[in-house]
Amino acid sequence: MPLTDALHWRYATKRMNGQKIPEQQLDRILEAVRLAPSSFGLQPYSVLVIEDQALRERIRSAAADQPQITECSHLLVFAAWSPLGEDHVGDLIRLTADQRGLDPAELENYRNTINGAVRSYATSEQRFHWAAKQAYIALGTALVAAATERIDASPMEGFDAAELDALLQLDQRGLRSVVLLALGYRDTATDWLAPLKKVRWPREKLFIPLTEQDLTGGPVEEPAYAFKG
Amino acid sequence: MPLTDALHWRYATKRMNGQKIPEQQLDRILEAVRLAPSSFGLQPYSVLVIEDQALRERIRSAAADQPQITECSHLLVFAAWSPLGEDHVGDLIRLTADQRGLDPAELENYRNTINGAVRSYATSEQRFHWAAKQAYIALGTALVAAATERIDASPMEGFDAAELDALLQLDQRGLRSVVLLALGYRDTATDWLAPLKKVRWPREKLFIPLTEQDLTGGPVEEPAYAFKG
Repeated sequence: MPLTDALHWRYATKRMNGQKIPEQQLDRILEAVRLAPSSFGLQPYSVLVIEDQALRERIRSAAADQPQITECSHLLVFAAWSPLGEDHVGDLIRLTADQRGLDPAELENYRNTINGAVRSYATSEQRFHWAAKQAYIALGTALVAAATERIDASPMEGFDAAELDALLQLDQRGLRSVVLLALGYRDTATDWLAPLKKVRWPREKLFIPLTEQDLTGGPVEEPAYAFKG
Repeated sequence: MPLTDALHWRYATKRMNGQKIPEQQLDRILEAVRLAPSSFGLQPYSVLVIEDQALRERIRSAAADQPQITECSHLLVFAAWSPLGEDHVGDLIRLTADQRGLDPAELENYRNTINGAVRSYATSEQRFHWAAKQAYIALGTALVAAATERIDASPMEGFDAAELDALLQLDQRGLRSVVLLALGYRDTATDWLAPLKKVRWPREKLFIPLTEQDLTGGPVEEPAYAFKG
């Protein structure tokens, strides 16, 4: 089954029916997250996996009362490591040495390269944005993986991060919340979005083919797209 | 073929062999990008698709001389709309009205919701980060799509954004570069990374199962993972 079929099938599910995801399918979605690409493979985030209904009720009140938080099967909270620093890089070096049968000392150049990249983000806020972007790669991966499993998913940015971080005691874990992902099954009877046509930019707006000649050919033309009305 | 097989197969290809991707496969990867999820479906980014060799030579010098930029088949430059504003939201409202056969006036609440979300990011830098994160969902989607096609891919953050933006005249288009993605075929004879074992965090480090009781049970325990040595 082509991946694009899965992507056509999926949508940001607003209402779910409470049905539980079979363990094997959840497992495959989480494994896709674990295998998600990231800068240097650092994956500078953790993923809280929350099934507990009482806790999801409390999260829902920190997240604009979005029903899918309590109606889903499992709620994932992507949370960036913060503050991000050399200790985290050291963990990756040890893991890499272990996995590849090397002495960590052989990875000193690699360690310095990664530390240099982390330090290139001067403030902890910039490092947070960098770590958050890596988490968004995993979010994209999870969304595709869920769609191929025909599991519905709802990514959510609409929450009070400070309130959620306090509720989940993320500071104690060296984490800051980034984005939520509810996994479950659409309730087509109540979800207003379910029947609506998927809307995407036409190709000629999203993609810009570019050659060197385009850069010397005078002023930039507007993308060739048009809407009716 | 399970998605996790494709994710095991892929790696951040450092050297490519110059072979061209068949048009149909490139097309499916780009279609996956077009269908990528984003906040409100706004997809506040464009994707420059660059095949021209001369231009890729120039990009390579703005990107730490990474060989895959000239050795790939196609280079994608994900670039966020910047400054992001109400005009962009207006475009989405018109597109949505067109696609769903509505009068744009019926979408006023939706327009106000999206504008409110955009305005919640007070500075243009914060809006850029938000738009960039949406682009990273598409990057994740593209990476998965390429892997399912058995097309190699190399995501790259290591470039001088100001230099690249100037080179590609992105300012004139209302764009700022976010991340690069080289698509092509691995050159196993020259790629030092090709034979190395993929390294990922163990599950028990990446995932944190959480219940309400965990939040009342005293101090947080360290994640239960350990490396040798």
